[in-house]
Amino acid sequence: MNYKLKKRINLLIYSLLLTTLVYGQSADEQQFQKIYEAALSEGKAYDWLNYLSNQIGGRLSGSIQAQQAVDYTKLQLDSLGLDRVWLQPVMVPKWVRGTPEFAYFETTPGVTTNVPLTALGGSVATPQKGIKAGVIEVQGIEDLAVLGEAGIKGKIVFFNRPMDPTLINTFSAYSGAVDQRGQGATEAAKYGALGVIVRSMNLRLDDFPHTGGMRYGDLPKEEWIPAAAISTNAADLLSTSLKLNPEIKFYFKQNCKQFDDVESYNVIGEIKGTTHPEEYIVVGGHLDSWDLGDGSHDDGAGCVQSMEVLRILKKTGYKPKRTIRVVLFMNEENGLRGGHKYAEEAERNNENHIFALESDSGGFTPRGFSFDSSDAEFERVKAWQELFEPYLVHMFISGGSGADIGPLKNESIVMAGLRPDSQRYFDYHHAANDTFEHVNRRELELGAAAMTGLVYLFDKYGTLGTQ
Amino acid sequence: MNYKLKKRINLLIYSLLLTTLVYGQSADEQQFQKIYEAALSEGKAYDWLNYLSNQIGGRLSGSIQAQQAVDYTKLQLDSLGLDRVWLQPVMVPKWVRGTPEFAYFETTPGVTTNVPLTALGGSVATPQKGIKAGVIEVQGIEDLAVLGEAGIKGKIVFFNRPMDPTLINTFSAYSGAVDQRGQGATEAAKYGALGVIVRSMNLRLDDFPHTGGMRYGDLPKEEWIPAAAISTNAADLLSTSLKLNPEIKFYFKQNCKQFDDVESYNVIGEIKGTTHPEEYIVVGGHLDSWDLGDGSHDDGAGCVQSMEVLRILKKTGYKPKRTIRVVLFMNEENGLRGGHKYAEEAERNNENHIFALESDSGGFTPRGFSFDSSDAEFERVKAWQELFEPYLVHMFISGGSGADIGPLKNESIVMAGLRPDSQRYFDYHHAANDTFEHVNRRELELGAAAMTGLVYLFDKYGTLGTQ
Repeated sequence: MNYKLKKRINLLIYSLLLTTLVYGQSADEQQFQKIYEAALSEGKAYDWLNYLSNQIGGRLSGSIQAQQAVDYTKLQLDSLGLDRVWLQPVMVPKWVRGTPEFAYFETTPGVTTNVPLTALGGSVATPQKGIKAGVIEVQGIEDLAVLGEAGIKGKIVFFNRPMDPTLINTFSAYSGAVDQRGQGATEAAKYGALGVIVRSMNLRLDDFPHTGGMRYGDLPKEEWIPAAAISTNAADLLSTSLKLNPEIKFYFKQNCKQFDDVESYNVIGEIKGTTHPEEYIVVGGHLDSWDLGDGSHDDGAGCVQSMEVLRILKKTGYKPKRTIRVVLFMNEENGLRGGHKYAEEAERNNENHIFALESDSGGFTPRGFSFDSSDAEFERVKAWQELFEPYLVHMFISGGSGADIGPLKNESIVMAGLRPDSQRYFDYHHAANDTFEHVNRRELELGAAAMTGLVYLFDKYGTLGTQ
Repeated sequence: MNYKLKKRINLLIYSLLLTTLVYGQSADEQQFQKIYEAALSEGKAYDWLNYLSNQIGGRLSGSIQAQQAVDYTKLQLDSLGLDRVWLQPVMVPKWVRGTPEFAYFETTPGVTTNVPLTALGGSVATPQKGIKAGVIEVQGIEDLAVLGEAGIKGKIVFFNRPMDPTLINTFSAYSGAVDQRGQGATEAAKYGALGVIVRSMNLRLDDFPHTGGMRYGDLPKEEWIPAAAISTNAADLLSTSLKLNPEIKFYFKQNCKQFDDVESYNVIGEIKGTTHPEEYIVVGGHLDSWDLGDGSHDDGAGCVQSMEVLRILKKTGYKPKRTIRVVLFMNEENGLRGGHKYAEEAERNNENHIFALESDSGGFTPRGFSFDSSDAEFERVKAWQELFEPYLVHMFISGGSGADIGPLKNESIVMAGLRPDSQRYFDYHHAANDTFEHVNRRELELGAAAMTGLVYLFDKYGTLGTQ
């Protein structure tokens, strides 16, 4: 009895203290506190991601899993008491990996070393019996012209320029190397290469091959050659082996295939604005992923964080002035069809989008946001930094936002991307180890909270264009 | 031939470009760039940690493993071409866990649920047959007085106040809960408790019990009662079960033991200063760890980062003005004897320590430093922030530094602690999963680089006290 009484008194004192503290804060500070409490003490993002990752798995466009993810996330959005939840149809490419790839290199006839290899997304298959040929190692596309047809024809070109480990932002290191994956095959084909293998876009030495998109551009279809990635460990081993014996033969076999486009969906939920329902704010990520892992960081994390933004706004009792939408875009990885479709429909319906935010850099501790806007808008936004500082998410920089929201860009919209810590991202990116256990619950939740804070501010204060 | 020529021309152009870039930088910016390149492209910290963690393992004070770690790190320091490397003897407590603990709770006679439990460091054993008693759950030490002897005597007290998930700095959440682990047993013993079990200091729900230090203070030895931690999942399960049935019995058995002190060592290496050799700068971490995991984050990471600071300074050709020491302290976890011994010897030898830096918050992405110094020194240090900003390590705050360097504190010394991202730290802290695979190479290396930068600046510019 005594014990319970004391507890009640403690609670009373605590409530009084809290009230005092709260009244010392600005309304925005109070709202931020509510947002973070909702995210960190009863967040839903992690549980949603658990389902997407462990019950559904990798969600390649046009796959059964992509459709399951559409159904699941719509169901979850339906449960949040939003004003409207719907599916937006979009035709997407359907590329499938087929049976597992197989690869090795042969130093002398019969002496082979197996190599972890994965077909690049969009690549054609090898002939059914595979390709076996000599290997020419290059450090980049610019080496091809130097070697010429004499050095390349009839060979497999091995692109082995690593990501630069000295760059602090690992996305810059990725940008500096990924042309080998994206255009390597097309360029090598012009010199008569039989196929290309690319060092995985990974800063770590390990045995995971990392897939990712490639394109044949204007190359006539009959000249398309198969392209694959090999693990960083395998790339180092092959490179060393080639130094010892340039006559090494490389073999790989893959039977991936491009089918006709199929129908899929963007999943959309919205809270209708109270005073400016005709102004739209979008927060989103992409629901599709590559097929090797379960797409937890890329971009299950961004999807569940975006869903969480709307849940938290509802939970904290905030009534948005403007219409706030969560959009789970389909087909970012190999087509960006969902992003284009959403923008087309927005234009067709004369929807005035004032702010769009994407999370597609992994579910790691958020450090801030990058903004794609006019200088004047950016200066104004920077005044909000101090609200984010207690939460250590106050790195506001000028830069890109997100691929899916890209097609919404116009003169007046402000676009932003969540910027999480980037150090671990490429350990997992597009590889079989992009899995749920590599996402930390708090890191994921802190990202959702920061996104909610930014959406709240844009809803409350609008942009320069709306004032 | 053509190809090689083109490569040479490219190299020449690159060198010219680099030279131009370098001349546009301040000397400090250039040195920072060299430091980061040395850390990120040919760092040694990760390999050292691999050995400490995977070849040696947990390094509890007084254990064989602690001695192996002393021998190994001395050997590695010997290989760096420092001016002096030596072992500083220090007597340390020797507490051993003994045979694995065993625990369960019993809802009705014979119906038992096993519970992951670990003895707290410094605890006494249970009687050989274990302790079995009723359980009283409390939210903290303040509840004990309310319950009184009537509610506690003859029972096992279950401290179950969780760390506060809404605090952004997880160390604050730890501080707010760890009194239950440190003083819970001593306080509960005063009311006649037979033993205590504590909810693990862990923000995540999982099955790992987290050990850590506890003390009996002034309590007469015959009143000491055994203390243990249970996993967060077990704590939640027990709490729910107690609500359904307050008569539950809890059983646990542990046979840990405190032996006489044994001799161990701080491991020290130094580069002699060129112009002010009589002024000392210390960078360090603690070499001992708890015994459950391999102590990778706590604090193998801090040790190898500190070693790396001296390696990088040598590697970049920097000649320190002042004497720079790496100190791998022994016995931070259950005695702090190494820290005290080092400070005693420094005083005895009239060594003027002007700056001390510790890394003991895990090998995660560094976000900045906390400084324990006069306001004037802190203001001055803040002018250096911009050098760290391109590397995203520019959170400079006023605060604590590190336990091991604490005894060096005086009026003039500047003390600092590396502040890594704290979100994942308590997932692993003092638990069986504090293992090498949870350390990311780049995150570890970025910490070492940031530390090197700060040591370089203090060496070059001294402190206000030295000017």
